[in-house]
Amino acid sequence: MPTIHDLDTPSILIDAARAEANIARAQAHADKNGLKLRPHIKTHKLPYWAKKQVAAGAVGITCQKIGEAEVMADAGLTDIFLPYNILGRAKLERLLALHRRVILSVTADSTETIDGLAATFTDAGHRLTVLVECDTGMGRCGVQTAGEAVGLARQIDTAKGLAFGGLMTYPAAGRAAEAEAWLANASQALAVCGLACERISSGGTPDMWRSSKDSVVTEYRPGTYIYLDRYQVAKGVGTLNDCALTVLATVVSHPTLTRAILDSGSKALSSDTLGLADFGELLGMPDARVTGLSEEHGTVTLGEGASLRIGERVRVVPDHCCVVTNLFDQVHLIDGDKVLETLSVVARGRMG
Amino acid sequence: MPTIHDLDTPSILIDAARAEANIARAQAHADKNGLKLRPHIKTHKLPYWAKKQVAAGAVGITCQKIGEAEVMADAGLTDIFLPYNILGRAKLERLLALHRRVILSVTADSTETIDGLAATFTDAGHRLTVLVECDTGMGRCGVQTAGEAVGLARQIDTAKGLAFGGLMTYPAAGRAAEAEAWLANASQALAVCGLACERISSGGTPDMWRSSKDSVVTEYRPGTYIYLDRYQVAKGVGTLNDCALTVLATVVSHPTLTRAILDSGSKALSSDTLGLADFGELLGMPDARVTGLSEEHGTVTLGEGASLRIGERVRVVPDHCCVVTNLFDQVHLIDGDKVLETLSVVARGRMG
Repeated sequence: MPTIHDLDTPSILIDAARAEANIARAQAHADKNGLKLRPHIKTHKLPYWAKKQVAAGAVGITCQKIGEAEVMADAGLTDIFLPYNILGRAKLERLLALHRRVILSVTADSTETIDGLAATFTDAGHRLTVLVECDTGMGRCGVQTAGEAVGLARQIDTAKGLAFGGLMTYPAAGRAAEAEAWLANASQALAVCGLACERISSGGTPDMWRSSKDSVVTEYRPGTYIYLDRYQVAKGVGTLNDCALTVLATVVSHPTLTRAILDSGSKALSSDTLGLADFGELLGMPDARVTGLSEEHGTVTLGEGASLRIGERVRVVPDHCCVVTNLFDQVHLIDGDKVLETLSVVARGRMG
Repeated sequence: MPTIHDLDTPSILIDAARAEANIARAQAHADKNGLKLRPHIKTHKLPYWAKKQVAAGAVGITCQKIGEAEVMADAGLTDIFLPYNILGRAKLERLLALHRRVILSVTADSTETIDGLAATFTDAGHRLTVLVECDTGMGRCGVQTAGEAVGLARQIDTAKGLAFGGLMTYPAAGRAAEAEAWLANASQALAVCGLACERISSGGTPDMWRSSKDSVVTEYRPGTYIYLDRYQVAKGVGTLNDCALTVLATVVSHPTLTRAILDSGSKALSSDTLGLADFGELLGMPDARVTGLSEEHGTVTLGEGASLRIGERVRVVPDHCCVVTNLFDQVHLIDGDKVLETLSVVARGRMG
């Protein structure tokens, strides 16, 4: 069996046992609190993990792009949520084809989106479930008021081939209570109009961990919980020892006592820090931080206790694992130093 | 012939005439100033453009990864510079194979790197050219002093299968004069020891434009000059009308009067701003800036004069085009609205 010493660098390593433990831990939390989990596959982009997540108890999966959903449907996943406004004939036709082979649901936050869906999905015997996306504080997509949500829900409800499925949001970081109040209010306004919210779907790994039985939310779409990263650790979701994804890198230069250079730059670790200081840290070396990136170089600043030598291999815990998996064509599942399996990141780079 | 209206979004569009004009303009500047151009293919990652650059007068190309160089060699490029410390048996063996089929040169900034090269390249009849990388102020790789440069040059010179090729640097932004002085001093120190610098190689599109006949630099490795981007425009290299690369995107949401959302997030535009404010701007709409990115959403803030409608297609000029091409599997060459050709970004994602 190959080991990580046989791999070229940079490479993505996934500690399989840690990822499995992270899946089990989140599912247990969800089960205990009466929440449904619908994991977001953007983090791993792999049918391998999507199937494990469903086997562990997830009600289905979440994809962000039709191309990702097509890959997952091809691999045998059967219940897919696409929380995105799908617009334009080409994408609507692909969506219709997908609807014919999996249990599909989408979102909308405008009459324009619903008009396009209603014109494409016309079979009253096999309606497409559409949730209304709500801006509960994040300032991205979503209706701004409960009144708007009611208006769109009515438009969905009256379209022959569409079924109103409930509300969806991606809450602002750390403002779950605000999102909760927003959704409760909108849900009541809908109930007054005779429109029941079968699903109220929320996202974000940290919020999922803070949710409880009292929440109006019925399902969560956590993504990062499977691998974790420095951002999740900073948010209190596990420790560095729970992080399943690391980037194996080689020290290629050591120009000064306190500076070493890795063969992993922004094309391997990504420039997305999610607001953290530094671009990553070295596993087992708390005094070694990736303080700068260019495309093919990662600059490590070494503190007092840290030392590296040229040619040495290190493992970097990145800030945001989801954007890292999008940069690599494959990942290696490991157990200690053993490479269990090498998987092609088949849903990577699905733009449309 | 297909048009850009037939393309799915997000997609990369390359205005072919602009890219050709950018190639010609830089080559004319280099010719006039007695400089050799050795374009860095990291910007486009396409043999198509590498061949055009060589046909226009470039002495060869620059790649950053062995995998990129292999793709270019396969496509018929014959003179490749790999300004990187190549370490480890697997990579050294690939480097040796590459040396057997193209005119190859590399860099080193440590005895460890030269030891590895010297142990692998042992044919005195077909020596590998090695330049010494110098840190002239950027604080990335490179020897810190002229004395260190002399020491490494001697080590290269005495290795049977290696030939000392000169000096290489990537200068700190805006500090070309400092780099110039550093290189002149090191070059003199080498001359005193009987080691001639046949090549003194520098990088960076803005510096290339500022170089003149008086420079100690003999060749430049500009990358971005072919496509240009917001960063280059900010540095005075051309205008927005010279930018050949744009990302075609669709407005998928318009939640408030001043906020619209594109289907292009950090997976399409990248989070790498190179220090600029905003993540991109919309072609022909100076009052529309991409002010926020999540993975699959680009938030556009609309100023007074700007308006968008849901479903509308826009073209975004990104901050840093090199990292954008690394995210897409293909690019579309265009002439106005016509799609001339769709090219696979064959050197994309070459990690090792």
